[in-house]
Amino acid sequence: MTKKCSFDYSFQIHFHEVDRAGVLFFAHLFTHAHDAYELFMANLGMGLDRTWSDQEYVLPIVSATADYHAPFHHGMTVTVRITIPHLGQSSFTTSYNFLEPEGRQHAQVRLVHCCVDITTGKARVLPDTLRALLARACV
Amino acid sequence: MTKKCSFDYSFQIHFHEVDRAGVLFFAHLFTHAHDAYELFMANLGMGLDRTWSDQEYVLPIVSATADYHAPFHHGMTVTVRITIPHLGQSSFTTSYNFLEPEGRQHAQVRLVHCCVDITTGKARVLPDTLRALLARACV
Amino acid sequence: MTKKCSFDYSFQIHFHEVDRAGVLFFAHLFTHAHDAYELFMANLGMGLDRTWSDQEYVLPIVSATADYHAPFHHGMTVTVRITIPHLGQSSFTTSYNFLEPEGRQHAQVRLVHCCVDITTGKARVLPDTLRALLARACV
Amino acid sequence: MTKKCSFDYSFQIHFHEVDRAGVLFFAHLFTHAHDAYELFMANLGMGLDRTWSDQEYVLPIVSATADYHAPFHHGMTVTVRITIPHLGQSSFTTSYNFLEPEGRQHAQVRLVHCCVDITTGKARVLPDTLRALLARACV
Repeated sequence: MTKKCSFDYSFQIHFHEVDRAGVLFFAHLFTHAHDAYELFMANLGMGLDRTWSDQEYVLPIVSATADYHAPFHHGMTVTVRITIPHLGQSSFTTSYNFLEPEGRQHAQVRLVHCCVDITTGKARVLPDTLRALLARACV
Repeated sequence: MTKKCSFDYSFQIHFHEVDRAGVLFFAHLFTHAHDAYELFMANLGMGLDRTWSDQEYVLPIVSATADYHAPFHHGMTVTVRITIPHLGQSSFTTSYNFLEPEGRQHAQVRLVHCCVDITTGKARVLPDTLRALLARACV
Repeated sequence: MTKKCSFDYSFQIHFHEVDRAGVLFFAHLFTHAHDAYELFMANLGMGLDRTWSDQEYVLPIVSATADYHAPFHHGMTVTVRITIPHLGQSSFTTSYNFLEPEGRQHAQVRLVHCCVDITTGKARVLPDTLRALLARACV
Repeated sequence: MTKKCSFDYSFQIHFHEVDRAGVLFFAHLFTHAHDAYELFMANLGMGLDRTWSDQEYVLPIVSATADYHAPFHHGMTVTVRITIPHLGQSSFTTSYNFLEPEGRQHAQVRLVHCCVDITTGKARVLPDTLRALLARACV
């Protein structure tokens, strides 16, 4: 069951991101997904900047997938809707639906984040605080 | 005399833009200046996306300068204030003050845009409509 | 059966691509895959710059996947080995193995390219020339 | 007097760097200059990755300028020639000439690097080792 999350993030397609056809270069979609992820985490009180200094773990992306249904044109305002389709023992998956202004889905990104202990460099179970926040955020 | 312009644009410093010290990579400041320029022009009704198809001229950047006074840290919200310090015969200069939330200036960018005829590839005088809009925007 | 292709491309991890941990930002791996794709196509005589002007079709990426096994550190020299695991009627898949200097695989990217008619905007069969070149390149 | 330096660095203009006109987006030129700077410093034995961990100082860019004379088209091979026009007490300037294959200059970038003490955060004199290497590199 895909859990629904209330977090939306919007951005505009800038000139420097589009290719010769005036369409967003495919790799940039992953960057926008990560921008949404950052704000989502900051909104949970787990901002990537804050945790950077005092954290015992990191959450590297071990897998990333995108499906492109329709192009993103220069100037378009895009909304990203975040859900968490999977919350595992030591990893979780974030999903990003990219919607154009009328609400039509243009693309979807999925990122798998693994929880890694900073000292050992090995996978570890998600900290309880983080798990609780992720679970609560996604009703 | 520097003409004042009412246009402000805000953005946040994202994770993927900062270096190992958690500070914005210097070259990205120019990209943010251009993002502000795009919105400024769109606001004048001269959006880069619209003009792309039906235009007789382009406005390439022939010179770019940045002065860095203080670092931009990850997560910081930055406001860009645009002015037009020079409006010439066939070129104009846009200036970008980058302010942190308290209003302190962290950096300044200046871009010189030259008006080039698309057919001949040579510099030409700024079209009257564009000149009038730029002059009016900057009281 | 994965067809082997002789094409390798190397690059270095630059300062502006790494995050606070000194590790390549995940989304940039897709950009490097596309850089390798460009050179691979140019090597086949199907360079993206040449075909841009006179082509009847485009080859947009409809799906992109990456699996990250080990980090790419600042300064590392990386070799990308390209194979074509699937050559279909109207689409093909390119695969990119990212190897560190000792030959250990650090990541893999897969891109699905669909052939789209420029006039109708619909999927079409791959042109014979392109299909033959792709098939020949991958012994 | 501009001191001549023997260091050259080459790169190719990739698809994702060009705009709708097939021309390098202006801000990316600064990134290429920094890529050349990295390799130049590594060549001197002062690689940015090595010094990152054990250094007492950083060399932030306090000013950056570019002049664009001719466009960089997709697929073009560009050579960057580095010189050091100024070696001061606590700062130095690096200059980058961007040459197309026939040797014609398409652009020039200048970066001013200031030496900052990591503990105090204030400008300090350039370390003797670094000064000697920079002076020797540029006959």
